[in-house]
Amino acid sequence: MAEEKKEQVTIVMFSGELDKALAGFMIATTAASMGMKVTMFFTFWGLNIIKKNEGSLKSSGWMEKMFNMMNRGGSSRLKLSHFHMMGMGTWMIKKLMKKNKMPQLEELISMAKEMGVEMIACTTTCGLMGGLEEPSFISGAQTMAGAAYFLGEARESKITLFI
Amino acid sequence: MAEEKKEQVTIVMFSGELDKALAGFMIATTAASMGMKVTMFFTFWGLNIIKKNEGSLKSSGWMEKMFNMMNRGGSSRLKLSHFHMMGMGTWMIKKLMKKNKMPQLEELISMAKEMGVEMIACTTTCGLMGGLEEPSFISGAQTMAGAAYFLGEARESKITLFI
Amino acid sequence: MAEEKKEQVTIVMFSGELDKALAGFMIATTAASMGMKVTMFFTFWGLNIIKKNEGSLKSSGWMEKMFNMMNRGGSSRLKLSHFHMMGMGTWMIKKLMKKNKMPQLEELISMAKEMGVEMIACTTTCGLMGGLEEPSFISGAQTMAGAAYFLGEARESKITLFI
Repeated sequence: MAEEKKEQVTIVMFSGELDKALAGFMIATTAASMGMKVTMFFTFWGLNIIKKNEGSLKSSGWMEKMFNMMNRGGSSRLKLSHFHMMGMGTWMIKKLMKKNKMPQLEELISMAKEMGVEMIACTTTCGLMGGLEEPSFISGAQTMAGAAYFLGEARESKITLFI
Repeated sequence: MAEEKKEQVTIVMFSGELDKALAGFMIATTAASMGMKVTMFFTFWGLNIIKKNEGSLKSSGWMEKMFNMMNRGGSSRLKLSHFHMMGMGTWMIKKLMKKNKMPQLEELISMAKEMGVEMIACTTTCGLMGGLEEPSFISGAQTMAGAAYFLGEARESKITLFI
Repeated sequence: MAEEKKEQVTIVMFSGELDKALAGFMIATTAASMGMKVTMFFTFWGLNIIKKNEGSLKSSGWMEKMFNMMNRGGSSRLKLSHFHMMGMGTWMIKKLMKKNKMPQLEELISMAKEMGVEMIACTTTCGLMGGLEEPSFISGAQTMAGAAYFLGEARESKITLFI
């Protein structure tokens, strides 16, 4: 159906851990550099990756406020899925990334933005994860309604990943 | 190969956490409502999602009995992958779902059933995860032999996800 | 594009847990037995699955040495993602696998090798995960440069999974 168009990659970012975020953005930026159209769809804990690092999250309702306090997110606050070890393991990985001249997550996100990678925050789970709204997210991320949008992209894609 | 047939989505449900179960069933019911054929393939901890909530799990062998005690499962017993916090986080998410007028997992599962989403329990891992048999599962779920069945569906699918 | 060639399956092995490793190799060996070409791409914690079990991991730099001590890996050392319980749950699963006449992970890996499943260690993350080099891995595993190779395989594949 999409054979004559650009090859397309769609990635669901469900998890909000540093290692999974790195994997997702490494794949996304590489695919974009190979000339593919890339859509990243952030949902559930994955929304943490594209939250602004600075400022506080606005939300109404005490449960939302509490949820956002516990689950602040933002690319600079993500933890490893293993070996976080009170921050020591996560610090060590960031050091090893520098030593290996790998871009940090923040840089990968900027690269993705510049390369035209589409970043979508799933509005269905925005409500669920503390009543998040568009100003909570980094510039370049759009909020858009849920699973139907994702499926519309995925059905046109050569490669679809759930991370 | 399947171009003239209904578009198909195949989802491996490997994880037994509430958030991943919600993501899987949101995608499945949305895909079904868009006219796609959906197959969900439950394996390993994912079998917990389609266990009956009521009654006890029958199994023979002390190791199986012990395993099933530790790993009771059932859609109403699933925990969040993060922030379960002795039940508090999971309770909060369920409240936020109600507030946002989102269907709870049990409702999503019923919807999926009514919409004809195929739910398959992988028999290979049924033995492994406490010797489970068909009566352990909700009505509508079928037990069927392992990875070959999954691959047969996935090779005909536009979208295949591992959740 | 690849319609006339062998059908292809590409699997990213991101996680290093016993249960996910089993799922990945069950799918890979079944797909190979169905005549499909299978590529497994090991990255991040998934590299643990194809580390040699015997001997020690060579690496230079104190951070790499420390990282490798904490994260030794090797197929015989992997833990369950749930219910590891100081080794008790993992031991129990291995017993249940024997009782159900399922091949253990080591056997699945050998089978995969014999069936021609391609096993690739992602060099980009090798540096990151303790400065690993080819001698750290089991024979048959190749080290190869990152995401571009994976995407090249995935774009030719009917089925791509991220595990």
